Amino acid sequence: MTAFEPPPLNRVQLRAVDRRAVEQYGMTGLVLMENAGRGTVEQLRAQQIAGKVLICCGRGNNGGDGFVMARHLENAGHDVLVLLFAAPDSLQGDAAANWNILQAAGTPCEVMQTPPTETEGPSSLTEPQIRQLQQRLAGAGWIVDALLGTGATGPAREPLAAVIRCINQAGKRVLAVDLPSGLDCDTGLAAGDCIRAERTVTFAARKTGFEAATSAEFTGPVELVGIGVPVCLLREIAEDDRLKRKA
Amino acid sequence: MTAFEPPPLNRVQLRAVDRRAVEQYGMTGLVLMENAGRGTVEQLRAQQIAGKVLICCGRGNNGGDGFVMARHLENAGHDVLVLLFAAPDSLQGDAAANWNILQAAGTPCEVMQTPPTETEGPSSLTEPQIRQLQQRLAGAGWIVDALLGTGATGPAREPLAAVIRCINQAGKRVLAVDLPSGLDCDTGLAAGDCIRAERTVTFAARKTGFEAATSAEFTGPVELVGIGVPVCLLREIAEDDRLKRKA
Repeated sequence: MTAFEPPPLNRVQLRAVDRRAVEQYGMTGLVLMENAGRGTVEQLRAQQIAGKVLICCGRGNNGGDGFVMARHLENAGHDVLVLLFAAPDSLQGDAAANWNILQAAGTPCEVMQTPPTETEGPSSLTEPQIRQLQQRLAGAGWIVDALLGTGATGPAREPLAAVIRCINQAGKRVLAVDLPSGLDCDTGLAAGDCIRAERTVTFAARKTGFEAATSAEFTGPVELVGIGVPVCLLREIAEDDRLKRKA
Repeated sequence: MTAFEPPPLNRVQLRAVDRRAVEQYGMTGLVLMENAGRGTVEQLRAQQIAGKVLICCGRGNNGGDGFVMARHLENAGHDVLVLLFAAPDSLQGDAAANWNILQAAGTPCEVMQTPPTETEGPSSLTEPQIRQLQQRLAGAGWIVDALLGTGATGPAREPLAAVIRCINQAGKRVLAVDLPSGLDCDTGLAAGDCIRAERTVTFAARKTGFEAATSAEFTGPVELVGIGVPVCLLREIAEDDRLKRKA
């Protein structure tokens, strides 16, 4: 009668959860993303929401979770604003699908895109962009960090590093999606700029990095939210020794 | 800050919600079904669950909602048994996909299939099948009615009519999914055998039939659960006069 709570999982194990849910169980990534975003909204609403929820999204699936959140928050009557720090046409797969739903629904979204530099990928935010971001952050009741997910490694790169610094300086309530952006999933260490969240809602399982004593100053209290995969898949992954070696 | 609660919708409007969610907003039927099933589990768990949850499923999307419920209930640590009153290979689309997930996960499922008669479609349950069904019903804490959805019209046909009678005779707590099987979505009348539920969890909007005074004896208290479609779609459907004429 008690739910199975999987042990903490590492990056490789978490990727295997998603992949096997699709390949072995016939689930779709969209369903997993829907469960993640919807579950996070339930946790956020339990914390009381006053004022606008500002959802800061990167271009990957962590951003996609943020798009799902925006839809469920709006449906529940909350005021939302999505900030996307990427070119919309760079979005792919399930994240792109959920971005398109927001556009069709007319959900408030702003794109803050930086031109790529010739040699080193995207440049940092411009001064006007930073002022615009600071203004949006100042107007928020809650800030949702949906910038980087478990796949990210090494220090956060620009422009997200600048976004992380601005969020941390805003002095607002911050909810991290899956894990704080900039925190390493496996080690729980911050290699560079890292979100300091009031709370973290994490998906499928706690991350091995959360076991590191220092991670709590970035995550705050961590809530676990299921993404709908059968519990036997989580057991199978947790017990597969080949997936543990990278931890 | 308050969520939009759509007015009661009829069968044609509800079909338009699903279709436009896919065609205009790029959502998938699987995501709508996931939200429906998961939301119903949340409502059921709020009622306290003691003992096994017996989920009685028909071959359509109402049965598919039941399959999603089984997965989420199992993940939450509850004991479930799915009874499918159809040939598994007759399942289609999203219902088939969710049935296949249950099979891959090894969720307890029993198929109670009746051979088709030569002239009139499926025959009723055999005496041994009725005894087996009665035994399963007697062992349940809650019975979930996921037999027929809003699309059904006219009196429930065999074998589901017999299943409805057995469920009503079991004297157990019964939760109806979307609406009690046998109740007409638009009129709120029962043309034949009809589930008498303790509670009903209904999706997207209340049904116009629930406005009929006599429907409450079949539905019990009705809880509304969102299926994740953007609130603007529900507004659009509710205000489209062409869809109202069939109400």
